[in-house]
Amino acid sequence: MIPDCPIAISMGDPAGVGPELIAQLFRLRPEWSSRCVVVADLAVMRRAVALTGGLLPLAVLEHWQQAAELPPRCLPLLALPPLAEPLPPLGQISAVAGRAAHAAIECATQAVLQGEAAALVTAPIHKGAWHAAGIGYPGHTEMLQAQAAAHLGLRPEQLPVRMMLSNPDLRTVLHSIHVPLRQAIESVTQARVLQTLQLMQRHFLQVCAWPACRIAVAGLNPHAGEGGLFGHEEIEHIAPAIAAARAEGIDAHGPFAPDTVFMRARRGEFDVVLAMTHDQGLIPVKYLGLEQGVNTTLGLPFVRTSPDHGTAFDLAGSGRADPASFMAAVEAALAAAPV
Amino acid sequence: MIPDCPIAISMGDPAGVGPELIAQLFRLRPEWSSRCVVVADLAVMRRAVALTGGLLPLAVLEHWQQAAELPPRCLPLLALPPLAEPLPPLGQISAVAGRAAHAAIECATQAVLQGEAAALVTAPIHKGAWHAAGIGYPGHTEMLQAQAAAHLGLRPEQLPVRMMLSNPDLRTVLHSIHVPLRQAIESVTQARVLQTLQLMQRHFLQVCAWPACRIAVAGLNPHAGEGGLFGHEEIEHIAPAIAAARAEGIDAHGPFAPDTVFMRARRGEFDVVLAMTHDQGLIPVKYLGLEQGVNTTLGLPFVRTSPDHGTAFDLAGSGRADPASFMAAVEAALAAAPV
Repeated sequence: MIPDCPIAISMGDPAGVGPELIAQLFRLRPEWSSRCVVVADLAVMRRAVALTGGLLPLAVLEHWQQAAELPPRCLPLLALPPLAEPLPPLGQISAVAGRAAHAAIECATQAVLQGEAAALVTAPIHKGAWHAAGIGYPGHTEMLQAQAAAHLGLRPEQLPVRMMLSNPDLRTVLHSIHVPLRQAIESVTQARVLQTLQLMQRHFLQVCAWPACRIAVAGLNPHAGEGGLFGHEEIEHIAPAIAAARAEGIDAHGPFAPDTVFMRARRGEFDVVLAMTHDQGLIPVKYLGLEQGVNTTLGLPFVRTSPDHGTAFDLAGSGRADPASFMAAVEAALAAAPV
Repeated sequence: MIPDCPIAISMGDPAGVGPELIAQLFRLRPEWSSRCVVVADLAVMRRAVALTGGLLPLAVLEHWQQAAELPPRCLPLLALPPLAEPLPPLGQISAVAGRAAHAAIECATQAVLQGEAAALVTAPIHKGAWHAAGIGYPGHTEMLQAQAAAHLGLRPEQLPVRMMLSNPDLRTVLHSIHVPLRQAIESVTQARVLQTLQLMQRHFLQVCAWPACRIAVAGLNPHAGEGGLFGHEEIEHIAPAIAAARAEGIDAHGPFAPDTVFMRARRGEFDVVLAMTHDQGLIPVKYLGLEQGVNTTLGLPFVRTSPDHGTAFDLAGSGRADPASFMAAVEAALAAAPV
């Protein structure tokens, strides 16, 4: 790792709001010019700058280290090979956009894995465009997991990852994500809950240098099972996993009734809540608004964050997309990236 | 129904915070003396008044209609037969407290069923005390359902009920409550979801005289199943139930992704959210605090509300219990009660 190396920002789907939000980032935070590198297609970023009012020079870099020398108030760009086809129209699913988004992530991830970039922030991709382009990954997480595993000489399943969502009020890690609720219940095993707690501890301890993170573990069932009356997963799996984690020095507590544990964490009783299901964690994180949500991937050998919204095709080009979540994602990456 | 008849308030467990919160109600809202009747043990309420600073006369009534003649700033009491044993100590589970709490609900419910009271507000009971007293109902809802069904000549299962939780930000109806999550999934059938929507419509239309209630229906799975990719309950059960409800004139929409539907309702897009599970609905309702939560039972032949907290044995007698939720429950009952 080169000291003071920049963080990498992948442009996301060229037809979505990613590129224009990236342009706005460097207007709102001129000092980030020397701390970030945007991996993108040059024509896509030219359009994004024009769409958002121009007046932002594109600084096309030859290599990652050049970013540090840039003056404020420009957009540091590592340009991908130019698109063979005309620029994908805004707000539409296209294979060319899917391929370009994929290429940007690949380049940015390799830079982080090779130590040329300190962390990765990804702009939103569109799953339909990836599908149209024949890209097999369902989303960022699976692709990053595969790339990082290959780099480490592992199979993807040997590099378990989890999603964390945070905003100024709440931080929550999701034990399971994009699976049917029935399958989410099956994933609540002692071994897997312990694995989630270990990934959390490693992230907070090693990445965030935060040794005393107070973790609350939500139950799966109403009232965390009410002593076995409303389900047994707490007794058979979650409580033993917490006990095993505590024996390893992880400051985990619970299992707590899901309906109040997020309120308690918001009030400061815990630093992070481990949610057993996708919606258990995302309902409270999103309840007060999506503006400042940041998505962090735990388990990768590097820091990766992203804004907590999608490509917003309906807003692309309108200038109405809110950069707050993207800014928070960059801030989180800059704060957590090893220097 | 006698016009202007009062609403009934059952005292709850004598060892919990119910009685002292009731005493506080009539200090904070002196004008409620002529609009409510508290069904309680006299000695229990004397202790509660003393614990909360005295200076509140107990007006012991002989019949329900007398409440209307009471002056402000007194506690209108319909006294139960005195307890045979000494007063149950505060903050402790006891059979005598469980029996007394049960007797208060029974008397208050009969008054509402007979038309002597306009609505019912229940103070919290303790399930352990009911268990100690040999009372077979797990809680208020099942008891009220049984009493109302008997009054109507029905079996309890012929009078389906649902729980609604509301606060100034959000109103949510729970499709299922105190069952394991696995069982909650099984309860998501087309017929039962339609039944919940019908109970909601009947409540809002008949009880609240609110004909155009916009109902959002949450999905069960992440992203409401993402077109079948993350589960099939939305396609097989929830969407057909919504279609059937709309054919009956119910303004139901969805199924929507659970992680954002509560945020959308909070922002005003919908009036109420039908949650598929206990925690789906209760996590957002409780997220901002429990202070003003009100629990309403849908499906009974009368209005019943309660505060959204328990007996709080640890606070009983301390004077630190917050009456806000109880006040909101009385306000909701007064607003919804037919006059």
